[in-house]
Amino acid sequence: MSEPFQGHTPGLLADRPSRALDLEEFRSNGHLLVDWIADYLKDLGERPVCEPTAPGDVRAQLPRRAPEQPEPFSEVLSDLEQVIVPALAHWQHPGWFAYFPAMSSPASVLGELAAAGLGVQGMMWSSSPALTELEAHVLDWLVDLMGLPQGWKTSAAGGGTLTSGASSSTHIAMVAARETCRGRTGAPIEQMVAYTSGQSHSSVEKGARIAGFGHIRLLDTDHDFAVKPGALNSAICQDRRLGLTPASVISALGTTGTTAVDPIAHMGDIATRERLWHHVDAAYAGSAMICEEFRHHLAGVELADSYTFNPHKWLATNLDCSVLWVADRKPLIDAMSIEPPYLRNSASDSGQVIDYRNWGVSLGRPFRALKLWFVLRDHGAEGLRQLIRNHRTWAEDLSTRIDNHSSLTLIAPTTFALVSFAHVDGDAATRALAQTINDSGRFFVTVSESDTGAYIRIAIGSTWTSRRHIDSLWRFIEANALQTAETPTRERH
Amino acid sequence: MSEPFQGHTPGLLADRPSRALDLEEFRSNGHLLVDWIADYLKDLGERPVCEPTAPGDVRAQLPRRAPEQPEPFSEVLSDLEQVIVPALAHWQHPGWFAYFPAMSSPASVLGELAAAGLGVQGMMWSSSPALTELEAHVLDWLVDLMGLPQGWKTSAAGGGTLTSGASSSTHIAMVAARETCRGRTGAPIEQMVAYTSGQSHSSVEKGARIAGFGHIRLLDTDHDFAVKPGALNSAICQDRRLGLTPASVISALGTTGTTAVDPIAHMGDIATRERLWHHVDAAYAGSAMICEEFRHHLAGVELADSYTFNPHKWLATNLDCSVLWVADRKPLIDAMSIEPPYLRNSASDSGQVIDYRNWGVSLGRPFRALKLWFVLRDHGAEGLRQLIRNHRTWAEDLSTRIDNHSSLTLIAPTTFALVSFAHVDGDAATRALAQTINDSGRFFVTVSESDTGAYIRIAIGSTWTSRRHIDSLWRFIEANALQTAETPTRERH
Repeated sequence: MSEPFQGHTPGLLADRPSRALDLEEFRSNGHLLVDWIADYLKDLGERPVCEPTAPGDVRAQLPRRAPEQPEPFSEVLSDLEQVIVPALAHWQHPGWFAYFPAMSSPASVLGELAAAGLGVQGMMWSSSPALTELEAHVLDWLVDLMGLPQGWKTSAAGGGTLTSGASSSTHIAMVAARETCRGRTGAPIEQMVAYTSGQSHSSVEKGARIAGFGHIRLLDTDHDFAVKPGALNSAICQDRRLGLTPASVISALGTTGTTAVDPIAHMGDIATRERLWHHVDAAYAGSAMICEEFRHHLAGVELADSYTFNPHKWLATNLDCSVLWVADRKPLIDAMSIEPPYLRNSASDSGQVIDYRNWGVSLGRPFRALKLWFVLRDHGAEGLRQLIRNHRTWAEDLSTRIDNHSSLTLIAPTTFALVSFAHVDGDAATRALAQTINDSGRFFVTVSESDTGAYIRIAIGSTWTSRRHIDSLWRFIEANALQTAETPTRERH
Repeated sequence: MSEPFQGHTPGLLADRPSRALDLEEFRSNGHLLVDWIADYLKDLGERPVCEPTAPGDVRAQLPRRAPEQPEPFSEVLSDLEQVIVPALAHWQHPGWFAYFPAMSSPASVLGELAAAGLGVQGMMWSSSPALTELEAHVLDWLVDLMGLPQGWKTSAAGGGTLTSGASSSTHIAMVAARETCRGRTGAPIEQMVAYTSGQSHSSVEKGARIAGFGHIRLLDTDHDFAVKPGALNSAICQDRRLGLTPASVISALGTTGTTAVDPIAHMGDIATRERLWHHVDAAYAGSAMICEEFRHHLAGVELADSYTFNPHKWLATNLDCSVLWVADRKPLIDAMSIEPPYLRNSASDSGQVIDYRNWGVSLGRPFRALKLWFVLRDHGAEGLRQLIRNHRTWAEDLSTRIDNHSSLTLIAPTTFALVSFAHVDGDAATRALAQTINDSGRFFVTVSESDTGAYIRIAIGSTWTSRRHIDSLWRFIEANALQTAETPTRERH
C-alpha cells in the first residue's frame, strides 16, 4: 500500500451512533482502496498465481474474538494486504488458466461499486423500478447481440433474469421442469427422470437432485465428449418401459471438461416429441455467441425451454452474474410465485411490470444488471468480440503447438478457448507436468479425468492475459514436457 | 456530478484488445465514482424516497440496441445519474421504513469494492483459501457475539455459510431436511410435511415448495401473531393419522408481518421428539442478538438443526449476505455434495478444509465475508449494538406516541424495531394514511394485512436514519391521522 489508509476523524453526522466511517472518511478511504485495487491488478503478474498456503494459515492470523470497539480502517486494509491477499488464488492473474475464468474488468468493478453504493433491492419492480427495467432491457439486448431466439425477450413471451450462477439457473429450470411435468402427468417427483450428458457439469446433476428428481440418467458420449445420437432416445424408451416419467433434458453447449457441444437440435427434437423440458447449459461458451462465427452451435436452441450462460465466466463481468432465459415465462412464474400481503402493490397487480422475485428462489436481489450494463457500454459489443476472438486465437495457436509436440496429445477439439491435452506417457506424466506448471507459480491449470485418463485443462480467459503470457506458458510446457517424459518415475506421486 | 467523468485515454497495456477502461482510467473514474456515491448518500434525504416512475419509463430512455463500439465512461456515469437514479426506490434514504431495511454502511460498500477488485471465487478452500477461512472465522465470531450455541462453530460439529438471502438459506435447510427424512423414513417427498406459522415469511412456504414438500401446514397463531402452543402437535398428529410423514418445522424468530417470535423451545421440543428437522428463521431479528437484552428470544435454539439471519437486513452489511448455521454439517454436506474429477484437489481430499460448494446450491461463490469482516471491525461489536439499540429506542418511542393517539392503534407488540399499527377507523383510513405518508416523498412505509385488517409497518433500520427523522415522521403521522379520521370517505380508494 503506497500510503497509509486514513483513520477516524470526528464524524460528519453528529447524531450517527457509532464511531464507524462517516461519508468523508468513506471518500478518502475509497480513493485509497481504488488505487490499491489498481496497484494490485497492475502488479498481479509478479505474484504467484496461487499463494502457497496451508489449511488454517489464515485463521491462525485472525483474532479469536471479534473486536468490541471500532478499529481504525487503516488496520482493516492493512490486514487485507497482509493476511488475506497472501492466501488467495488470484483468479485475475494473467497466468490463470484453471477451471473456467471468473472474468472481471475495470468497468465491472465500478459497476459493483455503484450497485453497492446505491444499496437498492430488486425483489419487485416497485422496490426499485430502474433495477428491474435495466435487467430486463440488458438481457433483451443480449438476445439480439447473441443471435438468440426473439421469443426469449421480455417483450415477447419469454424473458431473462439474472441469478447468482449457473448452478442456481439450472436448479431453477429443473424446478420449472418438475412442476410442468407434474401439472401435465401428475407423476410423483420420485418417478421423474432428468437426462443429461455424462460429461455435463456437476451442477446439472446437483440441480436436478436438489429439485427432487428421482432419477438422473447420464448419457453416453462419443469420442468428442458430446452426447451420442440415439443415447437419449433409448434411455427414454427404457425408462418408459420401467413405468418412469421422463421430465427434462439438459444439453450442454460447451461441457466443463472439454467444452463439447451436445447435439442440441437432435435432443431438442426428442424433447419436443416427448414433451420434456429442454434446458441448455451454455454457462461458459454462451459468451462466445456474441461472435457470429460461433453461432452454428446454437442450432436447435429455438426449441429450448430455458438456457443459461454466465457473463461472469467469459464476458468481462464480475461474479456473480448468470443469465437464465426462458422461452415462456409463465411456467417459471407459476413454479416460483407466492403472494403475501406485505408484497402487494398496485404496479404488480396491474400486470404491467416484471417482479423478478417470481422468476427464481431469491426474494432480495442485488442490482446485478448495473455491472453488465457498464461492461457492455464500456467495451461495446465489438470490444467484447475482440476479447473472445483473441482468447480463441491464442487457444488455437496453443493447440497447434501441443498437437505438433511429440510428447503431448490433444484429447478433445479446441472449440472455444479451452485446450485439453495429456502427456503421451500416461496419467503420471500428465499429472507431473501439471504439477510442474502449477509449482512454477507463474501459471495455474486444472487436471481433470476422462475415460481415457487424466488430462490438463488450459482455459484462456483472464482479462489481463495477453499473447505473451500464452507464449511464456508454451515455452514452459515445452521445456518441461520433454523432461517429464524422460523422468516419469521421479515425478510420479 | 460535480465534475465530468474522464473519457478514454490511450490504453496503459498496449496489448489489451479493446478500448475499454485501462487501470489508470479505472483509478480516475473510481475516485469520481466514490465521490459520487458519497454525494449521493449525503444528499439522499433531499430526494423523494421513491422517485415517481411509471412502468416502462426507464426502458423508454435506453437505446433499443446495445452499443457496437465502446462508449466514453463519462456517458455511462452520466446515465447512471440521469436515467437510473431518478427511477429508484432509495433503500438507503433516511426516510426508508418499508419492508425490512437493506442496511448498508461505508465500510460495507468498501468491502464490496475490495471483493470486486480481487475478483476471487470461493467454491472450495483451494480455489481461494483466505475466502473460505475468513468466512468460517467471521461466522464463528458471530456465534460468540450473538450468544448462539457453541456447537454451531466450524470448530465443532456445525458451521456457518454465507448465502444470497434467507430465501436461499431456508431452501437449503429444507433440502437437508428432506434428505434427512428420506434417509430415515424412506418416505416419498410428496408425503412429507413441513410446518410453519401462518405468519411466517413467504420464503418459508416457497423454500419448502421448491424443495418438493408435498404438504405445507400453516399453523394458527395467537393474538400476538406467534404460533399457538398446541397447534404444531395437533397438526402432526392429524398428518400421522392421514399416513403422511412430518419432516420439518420452521419457527420464526421475528415474523415479517409483525416480528412475532414463535415458541421456539416448545416447537423445538416437539421437533426433537418427532425427529423433525427444526429450522429457525431469524432473517431480520437475528441481528439484534448481538445485544444481550434480546437473547431471551433465543431460548430453545440450542435444539435447532439450522438457523438463518441476514446481516444484509439489520447489521450494516450490504445485500447480499445471509448466514445459514447448521448444528451438524454432515447432513447438509450429504445433501449438497457432488464430486466431479475437475474439482478434485489434495486439500479437499485431506478432509482438513471446508469446501463451501458442498454447503449449498451455488458452486461459484463471491467473497461475501470480506464486507462482513470490514463491518465488524469498522463498527466494533459495540458500534453495532449501538445501532440496534438506537433503532429499538426510537421504535419504542414511536410506539408510545402511537399508542397514546386516539386515532391510531398498535396491532402488535414492538419487539424489535418494527412498529405495526392501524387507524381506528378501519382499513380505508389506514390505507389512506399510508398513502399520504408515501405521497409525501419524505417517508416510505409498507401496508400489510392481518386477520383483523390492514396495518402500517414502520421498520426503523436505515443507516442514515436518526432520531430527528423519526420525530419528523411522527409529526407527519400525527397531522395526517386526524385529518384522515375526519375525512375517511374522501381518502378511500
